Amino acid sequence: MLTLYIGNKNYSSWSMRPWVLMKQAGIPFEERMLRFDSFEGESRFKQEILKVTPTGRVPVLVDDGFAVWDTLAIAEYVAEKFPDRQLWPQDPKARARARSVCAEMHSGFGALRSHCPMNIEATLAQNGAIVWRDQPAVRADVQRIVAMWTELLSEHKGPMLFGEFGIADAFFAPVCMRIRNYALPVPGHITDYIRRVCALPGVKAWIDDALQEHDFVDFDEPYRIKR
Amino acid sequence: MLTLYIGNKNYSSWSMRPWVLMKQAGIPFEERMLRFDSFEGESRFKQEILKVTPTGRVPVLVDDGFAVWDTLAIAEYVAEKFPDRQLWPQDPKARARARSVCAEMHSGFGALRSHCPMNIEATLAQNGAIVWRDQPAVRADVQRIVAMWTELLSEHKGPMLFGEFGIADAFFAPVCMRIRNYALPVPGHITDYIRRVCALPGVKAWIDDALQEHDFVDFDEPYRIKR
Repeated sequence: MLTLYIGNKNYSSWSMRPWVLMKQAGIPFEERMLRFDSFEGESRFKQEILKVTPTGRVPVLVDDGFAVWDTLAIAEYVAEKFPDRQLWPQDPKARARARSVCAEMHSGFGALRSHCPMNIEATLAQNGAIVWRDQPAVRADVQRIVAMWTELLSEHKGPMLFGEFGIADAFFAPVCMRIRNYALPVPGHITDYIRRVCALPGVKAWIDDALQEHDFVDFDEPYRIKR
Repeated sequence: MLTLYIGNKNYSSWSMRPWVLMKQAGIPFEERMLRFDSFEGESRFKQEILKVTPTGRVPVLVDDGFAVWDTLAIAEYVAEKFPDRQLWPQDPKARARARSVCAEMHSGFGALRSHCPMNIEATLAQNGAIVWRDQPAVRADVQRIVAMWTELLSEHKGPMLFGEFGIADAFFAPVCMRIRNYALPVPGHITDYIRRVCALPGVKAWIDDALQEHDFVDFDEPYRIKR
């Protein structure tokens, strides 16, 4: 049995990736949510997650007691365990490209991540406009994402980045949330892709849960003092 | 034919990973080094690398005109292309664990990376001692690495992290350089592992080239004003 440990659905962009991947691919798993209180050693979150993984971070996938941590490793593990789901593209070059863009996401786009933290329930268009005006590094991050998605959607003819839904779409789902919630300016075909991602049942289920959460985590809220 | 684009061997920890991986595994490739001058848009480095990859970063592996970027995606690509080299462990759980620790490296250990940038030719023990005294986040990063390596070396009986040499050892080779050059305090069995990594022909070849480079890149030198 697979158990996925995640953080708050409203905030945890890393948790969203494997959850959406498995949900959308119809892979059964049990969810365990550990509420973010603090990432310090003595916090409840840290104490609980350290029982499961030495990294002290979500997400973690536990398969019959064996812990797989980090989104990329989880994605590869699930892709190997459920080959019929074709979570990576079948063509070797498309598969390599999918891995390149996921790995690029995994270690990059720091400006977008720090200035526009995921916050699914919040309306942050005004904050997004100020970030857009003042942060060239955020504009560069979004420019790279727009170029990447434009090329992939054109090459693979949509509706998802590599044709059908796969790991790459799950990896960029939190980026879709950021662009949408901060109302960052992107071309129409990118907005269309974001709309298609949000309409995927696996993504919609995550968003619906996030909206029901009604939790407020201070350190994930640079732009609000209350809900 | 495979071509690997890399940065300066003395400094480019990301470039070191796939180069060492392929060299040590006996995979033939051509090397193209782009000297670091600046990462700004108008720099020679940026202009040259943008002809090869839209990310503007090294390393990039080019296979007959097809670009694979990012160390993790390159590792997966090479592992798929040369299955006989067994670059990932054959056992599914060991393979999952190898991917977890590589992905953990890929997006983590930011304190160690920023306070102790790789500089193979430099003697930086004094700087390392000050970093060690003043930076608890660096101590925490090293503590996690020591725990990880201790567990893996014990479980797989060495000499490398998962028994024989593989992707995980290549991924942590730059960490070995940092611990060694900054003389960060680690237990004896960790020093022994670092010594074994440095003695691998593929790693030794990189170190020897780095020592021959005689280049000085200002922005990679927080602790020296000249060679």
